[in-house]
Amino acid sequence: MDTPSANGPSAAGNSSQPEIHPQETSISEIGEFGLIAHLRETLGETDDESIVAGISDDAAVYRVDDDTVHVVTTDALIEGVHFDRTFMPMEHLGFKAMSANVSDIAAMNATPRYATVVIGVPKNASVEAIGTLYQGIKQACDAYGVTVIGGDTTGSHSLSVTVTVIGEASEEDVVYRRGAQPGDKICVTGDIGASYAGLKVLLRQREQLQQQGEDFQPQLDKFSYVIRRHLAPPAQVQAVREWRDAGFRPSSLIDISDGLASEVHHLCEASGTRAQMYEPSLPISPHTRNTATDFGEEVTIYALFGGEDYELVFTASEEELKSLDPQTFNVIGEMEEPDEDEPRVQLQQADGENVRVRPGGFDHFGDEQPDG
Amino acid sequence: MDTPSANGPSAAGNSSQPEIHPQETSISEIGEFGLIAHLRETLGETDDESIVAGISDDAAVYRVDDDTVHVVTTDALIEGVHFDRTFMPMEHLGFKAMSANVSDIAAMNATPRYATVVIGVPKNASVEAIGTLYQGIKQACDAYGVTVIGGDTTGSHSLSVTVTVIGEASEEDVVYRRGAQPGDKICVTGDIGASYAGLKVLLRQREQLQQQGEDFQPQLDKFSYVIRRHLAPPAQVQAVREWRDAGFRPSSLIDISDGLASEVHHLCEASGTRAQMYEPSLPISPHTRNTATDFGEEVTIYALFGGEDYELVFTASEEELKSLDPQTFNVIGEMEEPDEDEPRVQLQQADGENVRVRPGGFDHFGDEQPDG
Repeated sequence: MDTPSANGPSAAGNSSQPEIHPQETSISEIGEFGLIAHLRETLGETDDESIVAGISDDAAVYRVDDDTVHVVTTDALIEGVHFDRTFMPMEHLGFKAMSANVSDIAAMNATPRYATVVIGVPKNASVEAIGTLYQGIKQACDAYGVTVIGGDTTGSHSLSVTVTVIGEASEEDVVYRRGAQPGDKICVTGDIGASYAGLKVLLRQREQLQQQGEDFQPQLDKFSYVIRRHLAPPAQVQAVREWRDAGFRPSSLIDISDGLASEVHHLCEASGTRAQMYEPSLPISPHTRNTATDFGEEVTIYALFGGEDYELVFTASEEELKSLDPQTFNVIGEMEEPDEDEPRVQLQQADGENVRVRPGGFDHFGDEQPDG
Repeated sequence: MDTPSANGPSAAGNSSQPEIHPQETSISEIGEFGLIAHLRETLGETDDESIVAGISDDAAVYRVDDDTVHVVTTDALIEGVHFDRTFMPMEHLGFKAMSANVSDIAAMNATPRYATVVIGVPKNASVEAIGTLYQGIKQACDAYGVTVIGGDTTGSHSLSVTVTVIGEASEEDVVYRRGAQPGDKICVTGDIGASYAGLKVLLRQREQLQQQGEDFQPQLDKFSYVIRRHLAPPAQVQAVREWRDAGFRPSSLIDISDGLASEVHHLCEASGTRAQMYEPSLPISPHTRNTATDFGEEVTIYALFGGEDYELVFTASEEELKSLDPQTFNVIGEMEEPDEDEPRVQLQQADGENVRVRPGGFDHFGDEQPDG
């Protein structure tokens, strides 16, 4: 028993340097999506037949019995990258970390069931602060019907919350990004752009606080809706329940984490369609409009590129939409046949002019850069 | 559609400070186990009847059909806390992150199936380095029969790898920490203390490298076994397979992540037993002995308190052990009836003297502090 076979990679201490060598490639050159593509390539195809969908949609799907699948998703919120501890109350951080993951489960038309939570705790966090973070997690669990069944707490340089959520669905109920058909309406739940508006207000308040010190009086009431939408966005679990009760199944589905424009691109690319959207149809709260006005900015930018709304974008035929309560969604456009000569996604503005929409911005000049 | 109900916690920007207030409690006062207990208390009991075991064992257990359960575990490796990038090759980091989690699945007598991976990528990591990390994850997947089905990459201040592994078992096959009976033998797979010996060598080499600069020639060959056991420890999936094939089921089971002494305490506390261990029976590789000698230290300390061996500690009756190949494990002691006047865990040394073993150290004086 003295020499068990260590079946790991080849041994010994070839130290990898924490500095990038001149011949190496910086992460910024390929970005997050590039890294994920690299991982998928490294891991290769699986021959596990229980896996219905791997790293390609909002959540992975695997079969647990003849009819039932589980869906799993995981996401991290890291201090200094995803949130600023000076204006993110701990309770909201816990709630939001759960929402972001539960939203990915809703985006598969599935029901969230179980969660695991890993919390990286820096030395300058108190037991009371972490306790309040737990309270936010608990509130989200109660709101979404999720049970935390496992987790880990560990020392860390900065505060982080990594959540994994496992959900459940009938295999036939699962909806992917890829099912949209030409002619389908593009719909969105709730209203969009508010989370980004809230972030703008919070960043401005932080700056004013730094400049004015204790004399600063934050205007919380005027902006409370958008601030709440940034700090504690709810995931649309209720929409999925209502769809199931109505016997409705979208043809394609995604949640808004990176911004409406980016998500509609994902649906089009996966489905092989184009999208025509209408600016006047975008559901934007008056609170969000007022905030944009306050900043002297175009609210459409908030709605298309803001992100972190955690609303659902879905497609369905006009006929199928009749089974839904029209108060629970807005039609913002429709899917069209693919056409290489036309933009993947375009937006008809209030003045009737069509502009090309890229995942991360407008293009008023219709140049020949590829979409994506 | 303008005012969807945001069902999150009460809104607005009460900023929580990143400094600990004098009236708050420092994390170091309650420690990691204290924080986990706090989380369990906050979350309360679940009424979800599909959950067989929550936050209490190496992994959580939930029912997916009449006979089958899934087990899930999650663990993070964070730069500067769990590893040092200057001597942890990226390939080994990926392998070890998988091993640590797969080991928790093996510690439930279950088969690992699916994994999700969240990688926090700092600006000073190259695409090539992250690619090598992926290679290590891939090697572990191939070795353990696990498929990565989801994940996330995100910016971060320091490199981190957070893995969640989902495994599968018949409900009746799952083994917990709590089943040990008085009279059962305490057994361990493989050999122990080597990972800690490897860490000692790597730390010394880093110091020598800093002192001697480029003249430094590391002695890798002499210590390659212990270094490998630290950098790329294998999880004992094979043992679980052999047990199933032999129709063997341990009465209690845990893996060695924090050190043998700590793990045997967990088994005793969960099972309501005491443990008598025998120093001469501890399975220690000659490589580990030589390393301890090289450092002028007692190798028993490495074996009991070193941790990160990822071997399995299990209990079974003498009769049941007859179904196993005696080459695949060592008997290191036995479980006894609880006795408040005796130490929870004691070790009979080579000289015949019994010493009390605490989770994190020896106690030669048998004082009256409670066991922890």
